[in-house]
This record gives sequence, structure tokens and C-alpha cells, in this order.
Amino acid sequence: MEHKFLNFESIDILDGFWCRKQEMLRKTTVWAVYDRFKETGRFDAFKCDKNSEIKPHIYWDSDVAKWIEGASYLIKKSPEPKLEEIIDEVVDNIEKNQLPCGYFNSFYIAIEPQNIFKNRDCHELYCAGHLIEAAVAYAEATGKTKFVDLMIKYVDYIEYRFKIKGDTGFKTPGHEEIELALVRLYKFTGERKFLDLARFFVLERGKSLETALTDWANESYLQSHMEAKKQDKAVGHSVRATYFYCAMADIALLDGDEELKSACEKIFDDIINRKMYITGGIGSTHHGEAFTIPYDLPNETAYSESCAAIGLVFFAHRMLILTGEKKYADVIERVIYNGFLSSISLDGKAFFYVNPLEIVKKNHTRHKSVNFSDHLPPMHRFEVFDCSCCPPNIVRFLGSFASLLYTYNESGIYLQQYASSKAKFKIDGKEITLIQKTSYPQNGKISLISDTDVTVFVRVPEYLGDLNFAKNGYVPLRLVANVEKTIEFELPTMLIEGNPKILAAAGKVALARGSVVYCMEGCDNESELFNIRINKNTDFIHGFDNELGVPTITVSAFIREDSDALYSPLSQSRKEIFAKFIPYHAFANRGETDMQVWTLVE
Amino acid sequence: MEHKFLNFESIDILDGFWCRKQEMLRKTTVWAVYDRFKETGRFDAFKCDKNSEIKPHIYWDSDVAKWIEGASYLIKKSPEPKLEEIIDEVVDNIEKNQLPCGYFNSFYIAIEPQNIFKNRDCHELYCAGHLIEAAVAYAEATGKTKFVDLMIKYVDYIEYRFKIKGDTGFKTPGHEEIELALVRLYKFTGERKFLDLARFFVLERGKSLETALTDWANESYLQSHMEAKKQDKAVGHSVRATYFYCAMADIALLDGDEELKSACEKIFDDIINRKMYITGGIGSTHHGEAFTIPYDLPNETAYSESCAAIGLVFFAHRMLILTGEKKYADVIERVIYNGFLSSISLDGKAFFYVNPLEIVKKNHTRHKSVNFSDHLPPMHRFEVFDCSCCPPNIVRFLGSFASLLYTYNESGIYLQQYASSKAKFKIDGKEITLIQKTSYPQNGKISLISDTDVTVFVRVPEYLGDLNFAKNGYVPLRLVANVEKTIEFELPTMLIEGNPKILAAAGKVALARGSVVYCMEGCDNESELFNIRINKNTDFIHGFDNELGVPTITVSAFIREDSDALYSPLSQSRKEIFAKFIPYHAFANRGETDMQVWTLVE
Repeated sequence: MEHKFLNFESIDILDGFWCRKQEMLRKTTVWAVYDRFKETGRFDAFKCDKNSEIKPHIYWDSDVAKWIEGASYLIKKSPEPKLEEIIDEVVDNIEKNQLPCGYFNSFYIAIEPQNIFKNRDCHELYCAGHLIEAAVAYAEATGKTKFVDLMIKYVDYIEYRFKIKGDTGFKTPGHEEIELALVRLYKFTGERKFLDLARFFVLERGKSLETALTDWANESYLQSHMEAKKQDKAVGHSVRATYFYCAMADIALLDGDEELKSACEKIFDDIINRKMYITGGIGSTHHGEAFTIPYDLPNETAYSESCAAIGLVFFAHRMLILTGEKKYADVIERVIYNGFLSSISLDGKAFFYVNPLEIVKKNHTRHKSVNFSDHLPPMHRFEVFDCSCCPPNIVRFLGSFASLLYTYNESGIYLQQYASSKAKFKIDGKEITLIQKTSYPQNGKISLISDTDVTVFVRVPEYLGDLNFAKNGYVPLRLVANVEKTIEFELPTMLIEGNPKILAAAGKVALARGSVVYCMEGCDNESELFNIRINKNTDFIHGFDNELGVPTITVSAFIREDSDALYSPLSQSRKEIFAKFIPYHAFANRGETDMQVWTLVE
Repeated sequence: MEHKFLNFESIDILDGFWCRKQEMLRKTTVWAVYDRFKETGRFDAFKCDKNSEIKPHIYWDSDVAKWIEGASYLIKKSPEPKLEEIIDEVVDNIEKNQLPCGYFNSFYIAIEPQNIFKNRDCHELYCAGHLIEAAVAYAEATGKTKFVDLMIKYVDYIEYRFKIKGDTGFKTPGHEEIELALVRLYKFTGERKFLDLARFFVLERGKSLETALTDWANESYLQSHMEAKKQDKAVGHSVRATYFYCAMADIALLDGDEELKSACEKIFDDIINRKMYITGGIGSTHHGEAFTIPYDLPNETAYSESCAAIGLVFFAHRMLILTGEKKYADVIERVIYNGFLSSISLDGKAFFYVNPLEIVKKNHTRHKSVNFSDHLPPMHRFEVFDCSCCPPNIVRFLGSFASLLYTYNESGIYLQQYASSKAKFKIDGKEITLIQKTSYPQNGKISLISDTDVTVFVRVPEYLGDLNFAKNGYVPLRLVANVEKTIEFELPTMLIEGNPKILAAAGKVALARGSVVYCMEGCDNESELFNIRINKNTDFIHGFDNELGVPTITVSAFIREDSDALYSPLSQSRKEIFAKFIPYHAFANRGETDMQVWTLVE
């Protein structure tokens, strides 16, 4: 059954885990990303000066656009004149340099005007999509419509060239994004032509084979190997894929298209049953930053891009709206506490593009020993990348994070994610204020109080399985106005094993407390991590690391002691040690050190 | 204490394991390699026809030379007129096309005469070395000296250009081989200038930095990073390395050079204590086919080149002669039953260049899914390669295999390798015939009978450790003329573990019976191999595979049963199965299937 969701603008996150992350975003991250983008020339690129010393990159517009979108969310919640000033200057530059036809792309205008709309993989429509999203977000935040008006002009030109005239060098974009952006523009303006154009890009895709871009960037890489409605597997570049699946879900909802809905359901199941890391990360290889084959989830060479984690949440959230099924909210929880959150340093200033599940420092030494630069995971976060798509994506994701908390329909409110918050609903004309108090994920207690009688369906966390007092995975709580009700879920610490088909998890376990996956770091442990075997009957000792400001779990484990022999008969002799774990999302905040999610068990 | 070794020409292998391999060599392999070389143009290349349709490769001379060397060993043991005819034709072509100065290289003469001795990595001196070895072997086999005379003329020219005039584009060769070949030529001719030239190439190496060849082919790759006497670690391309270390050991012996001897000992220990697969394979990466860092021994991406296994035996054999220490013979045993023997198919016609310790077929599917061709192991043997150095190396190795069996000195005869054989010694002018009867490695019983009273020191296999009735690892048997004595070593079946520093062996064991390492193949086992955990208390059921003609071992093991969940709480539930193992050297003889040496244990 379809749900509606409560937009972040109607929710104040009050305190606790996510409040601290949002404060970090407002105080630090939005500025850190701005500073890096400013100094690398990304903002000045909007001047479209072909003589500029710094040559813009084809996706710089999208970097800044995502930052604007995130900044707009902050402005929406609380005025930030400096941010507005920066954004207004960008908008002025767009106005100044937009071509008379409506086209805008800082790279193509300044550098290659002769190649506009000729190259499928050059991210023009991707950049356009992000500019559209930014423009809508900025209009919603400030009421200023200049930016969105400029983008509507651009969209009209896109419609003319791609849909009406059809004279462009490609039919559908190499990197999806514009599809979901057009849906958003439709929702903002109410103009059906934008939805129709979104539908055009979604449904034309894969109808005829367009040229593969390179050897590896084939039609599957671009999700163009077949029509959307026929797709049932997650393939190709994982960010492109999830953005596309988002648009499919959007159109399935708006058009009531059961075929698209069914395709989305199959694809989603393919991801979460066969192609998702325990952290919620997706994309098993750096080759094409792509999905590979079922159960192929290598740890050290995991790609698990930050943007793909975000894309998976976007997709899951749309599927939650479309179906009302809790499994989608379960996946969101898995991602936000792990594979998403690992992407940003604890100080809010540095970012992972790639989120590995294992770091073995000596494998870097290995590579150096033969002067080879094969793909190995980064050992620390960076403040900016050449391809810096992830940092501003993190900004906009955290800025609108509260939108994930609640959905609702005629039966009541669904509490999908746990976070202390005050939410204002308007359901069937009735206003309801709901306050959620919780220290989740520190414990599983959730207190609710509303100013009106209402039923709140509280999602049971995935790791508790089926609870007999829950209905479809939600515990219905009938709230009486101004009477607090409390529910407390168990928050088990668990050793988890992977499907027997996952080679990288064979013989190993991961440690999790609730949905928070833990890892070991080399700097916390005396042995090489791969030599540690968790005692399968271990107790769990909970602690707190003051330096990192995160909880810790210590377990009993065994190691084999150092030996001179390279090979020797199997000995059962083991040394007992204690192994210390920290939340996976907090790794790589203390310099370069080994890290491991999956650990031997015995 | 120095030993002498008994050359294969004085030994007849009578029956059993190695006899079957030598019969296969004579009946099949030598011809199979010839046919492939003939049809690929390697033999015709010696015509040096610059207008030939088939362009020769820079190392083709060495391919044919190694084959000639191997064929000569066969001729030495028993006439083979057809082989002689083929070789004589090659020699005639060399005579016809050798430059007046003495230079001979079919590629450079036909294709790039202007570039003679200009490019360090173009294998000219490597080819020269193999031609020298072939020429000596052929002269020893047939008494015909034309080939060796032609090569002496070539060596004189090399000496003139490299040592006297010094006007070549490089000082020492990019790929070692000529050094040990010159020592061999010295031993054959007794002419010191050849030894001096060998010493020149060995001692000049690394004295001054020569140009690195490419990014990855740096001075370490070529063992040119420091002077030979200062080297103490195995580095770089593992075939180049072992050939170089052979020459170092040769010169250490001939010159009584303690510094070179000490360098060789340190390098050897570095290999066998830190850089050798359990199969005796060396070279942990395809990047530069090279040694990497200590304990870096990945299974699937093992390089473990067949030529490197052969090179390690050559090196170990020289060290055995130089020191008389049994550990060198132990390593030879490890290599010959595993990493060497895996290089040739059971039918003797096809070859591995790379000898992996794990094959996971679905990883090939993985790579295809993203159109990527990263290094993965071959899944079957080939009859010929573009760079076909290994097949003829196997021919010459098997052809002279018996040279590994015995050493001797004034205290008596040392039985270093077990094989049914009749050996004729001449020690201090006294002739001794020694017959060894054994079914090794099927069992550990060895019977000895000689026609003269003599002490035979029988090496205790490495896997038995120190036996209290042995002396320095050898059991002294005082043979009385014509009285058979029998010794029977235990032949334990064992689960072996790797050093705790080896990531690829963590949590796993290998199965071995005596020195024969076993592996599982997918076609013999019902579960994916990485999901199998050997019961650490298993019994071993010995059997025989009639299709392959090899012994088998069946063990009790556990698997986790199929599950729908991608992740679930640790369950102790296991299904008990029987897992079947075959000798590692017999893998990949039944089509493409998974293979695994290191298996989980619990």
C-alpha cells in the first residue's frame, strides 16, 4: 500500500546521534566542501570564462549543484545568509552565461561549445539534473525562483532537442539523474510536460542499442541493455543504476505503472539478497564502479561508493513510499549507520569515495615492491577529489536526512527510522505533532508523545526478526493525546555470518550491535587482524573510546603465535587475546592502519 | 662441506613414479613440444630469413635451445636419430647465418641487425646462454662439436664486445642465464676465459646503476639493485633471479668465494622461509612475474611460474653441492612433486606457465560481467604459448632429472632423492654400482644394494623432522657388497598450516601425504570449495582415482548449507560431507573446474 512521507522541513531533529551529525554538517561540512570547491575553481567555473587558467571538468556543475541543494536544506531549516549569498552568485553566473536557447553547462559553454549534446558519457544531462534539483531546493528554501526559472528554460531546450527534434548525438543520457530531477520539477511546478520528459528518458532507455562508450562502459554499465520494464537485475555502474531505479520507482508511483513497480521490486531484491555488503554498500568492483555477479562481495577491493550508498537509500525510500513494505526501511537503516556514514570523517571534513571492508597495509607495500598500482582501497579520507561527487552528495543527504524518519497513510503514522525529533504532520487536514525521544543506536528505547490521538506504527528493527506482537513488521502504538508511550527494543550484539556463497565471508563473522556493524582496526589490536579468530562463544564487553567518541566492543579471541616455520603440521595451540572493535563508520580516523569487518571465528 | 653430484648419464631410472614421467617425456612430450615449435615457426626462424612471413620473437632461440638441450639428454641415454637430425639442421642453420664476427641471434640477424647489443631487456645474452647450454649438452650426448665450436666463436665475440671493448648498450644482461651457461662451457672446455667472463657478468652486475627498462622493470626486477655479494634477499623476476643465484653459487664453489656463498645462503633462506608456496612455487605476482614481500603468498593470483620452480631446483642443487646441507635437497623434493610437476599435464602434452594454488571459476565470470581482464589464473594447460619458455624447460629438466638423486664425497654416497635406479659411481678411482628400489612417493620403503662395501647416507624426508638415529638429517647405512638393506620411512598424511603471517593461509590448512601436496577440485566435490571446512580431527581414507591414475585422499569435512539470507546470525549448524583430494600436481586434467590447496578447517 502506498505511503506518503513527511518532508524534512516538517521535522526538527532534537538531540542524539543524528542531531550531532546535522550540527557537524551545518558548522563544518558544508563549509569544508565549499572551501575545497572554491579553491579548486568549481565555483568560478560558472563564469564560463574560456580563458580561465583552470579548466573546468565535465561534471563540476553537478558538484556545485549538489552542494547548493544541501545548503538549501540548511537554509530551509534556519537562515544562512552567507550560504544564500554564495548561491545567488552562482545563479547570477548561470543567468549571465546561459545560452539564448536555454542550454547551460559551464564546461561545454567555455570549452567545447561545438560538442554540445554529442557525447553520451559527458554528463551534460546528469549535470542538468543536479542543477534542476538544486534550483527546486533553493526555491523551496528561499522562495526565490530565478534559478528554477532558468532551469525550466534549459529543460524546455532539452525537451526540444531530445524529444521533439531528436537531433542529438544520443537518445538517453550516459549517466542517469535527469529523470528523477524532472519528476521533482514536475512535483514543484505541477507541469505535466516535465513528468512526460522524465517518462520519455526512462522508457526510451534500452529500446534500441546506443553505442557503448568504451570496452567496459557497455550497455549494461549504463543500464541500457534492455527496456526498463524488462529489467530485473541490478547491473552496471552502481550510482547510475540506483539513480535510474529511483526514476523508475517515481514513475511507477505517479503513473500507477505495475510493470515498472514489479521491475523495481525485482531489482531491489537482487541487490539486497545478492549484491549488498553487510554495510549496505553496493558496487563490488572499481572496474566501472559496478555491480558484478551474485554473492561477489570482496572486502579489500570493495568499491561501495559513497554516492551508491546514498543512491540505494534514495531507491529504498521510493520503494517504501510505493509499497509500504518495511524491508525497504530496514535497508535504509543498514546503510545510514554503516556504508553511508563511513563516507565522512568524524570531524566532518574529509570523505571516502570508496568504502572498503578491509584494509591490509602490507598489501600496499606489496604493490610498491613490484612498482604496480593495482586498485587497493584508500587508507584515509580526502577533503576533495578530482571527481568529487561524493562530498556534496553527503551534504545534501545529511541536510534532508529527516525525510527518512516518517511515512504515513490513512491508518496512521509509520515511524521508519529512530531519531529524537519533533514532527508536524498534516493528515486529512488534521495537524498532529509527534515527539520521538530516543538514544538509538545507543539503546533501543523509544518514547513517543503526540498532541492528538493517533496510531503510530513503529518499525521493528530488521535484526530482531519477526516479533509476534508486530504486524507486518511494525508495532502499532495507539497514542492518546499528551500521554507518553515507550517501547524498548532489544539491541543485541551479534556475530553475523554471510551467505555460504560469499567467498569473502567464508569461515568468518562480522560483529554488529543492532544495525551498527563493527570493525577492528590495526591500531587497537596487537596481532595482524587476519590472524585473529573470534571465540564463537565470546561474551561482549561494551566500552567507550574517548578519543573517537564512539562505543567499543571487546571480544575474546584467539591468535596463532609467531613461528619461524613457513609451513608446519596443524597445531591446535592458540593464544587467547581480547580483540577490540569500533563501529565501522568510525574507521580510518586515527591515521593509516589495518581494518577488517569480516574476521575468522573458531 | 662440498659434495659432488652424480650426473644423470651414470644413472638409469628403473621403474616407478619418475620412470613413468621419463617415458612420457621420451614418447610424448619431447615430440609435442617439437611439433608446436615447428608449426609456430620457431625452428625455421634459424634460417634467419628476413622475408619470412612469420616474424621471429626475441626469445625464440632460447625456446629451441632448451628443447635441444632436453633432446640431447634423451639422446645421451639412448639414441634418437630423428632428434639428432632435427638438431643437426638447426646447427647447420646457425653455421650458415652466424655473422662473421661470431654473433648469432635469429631475431636480430633477420629483423633488427642495427640494434645488436643495444637493448638490455631483449634477451640476446639469455638466448646466447641457452644456445651455449644446448651446444654443450649436444656435444656431450653425441660427441659432435660443431655446435659448441660455433658457440665458442659467439662467446669470444661477446667477451670482446662486453668485457674488452665495452661498447655495448648495456653492461650486464636484462635476463640472466649466460652466466651459468659460461660456467658450464668452462667445465666442458676447461678454458678459464669462459669462467672469467661468467665472473665478469656476475660481479659487474649492480656495480653501477644501469637504466631501468620500464616503470616496473626496475633494477630490483633485474637483480641489479646492488652488487651480488651484498644481496641477501630474493627480489624481482623470479626466473631471472634464480638463474642469477645459480651463477653466484657456481662461482662461489669454483672460486671458493665465501662472500658469494654467504649471499647465496641468505637469499636461499629468504626464499624458503618467507617467499615460497607450499608447492615449492615462487613468484607471488604476475606483475613482473616477481617476488614481492615476505609472507605475501596469494593463492588465486599466485604466479609460481614453471620456469621459476625449475630455477629454484637448479639453485637448490648448486647449494647442496656447495654446502652438503640437507635442507637444499628437502626443497628440491618439495618442488619436484608439486610446483614443478603441476606444470605438465598427465598426458605430457600441455603445460602451465602459471601454477595457481586456487581456481575460482566464478571469478572469471565476475571479470566478464564488467568486461575486465585482470590477471586470473589459467584454468587449463596449453600446448604452446607466445612466450613458451616453460615447455622446453620442462623437457630439459625431466631429461636430466636423475642428476638430482645422488651426491657423494669422501665419506660416502648421499641418497638425496628417492627413485628406483641403478647408479654407477666412480669415487676415488673405485667403481661402485648402487641399486635403489622404492615405490616412493607411494610408500616410504627404500631398499639399497651395492656391488661394493660403501656407506650410503639416506636423506630423512623433511616432513619427518629430526630423527634421533639420523646424523645431520641423513641415516647412515653401511652397505656390505651384494647384501640388500632396507629402510622404511613413515609417510604421514598431514594437515599443514601456514605461517601466521601468511594472509592467504589464515584459518586454513593444506593436506599433504609426505611431500606430495593435495588439492580439491570442483568436479570431485559437491560444495563450492571455499565453503568446505576440513574436520580438524578427520581420519584419512586413501584411495585411487582410476581415471587420473593418481592416489586420492578423502577427509571428513563440514559445509554450511545453502541459505536465502545474505546475512544472518552465526549458526553452528553444519552438514557433514566427505571431501575428496587429489595430488596438486594432477589438477586441471579433467576440464575447467575449481581448485583449492588451502581449505578452511574447524
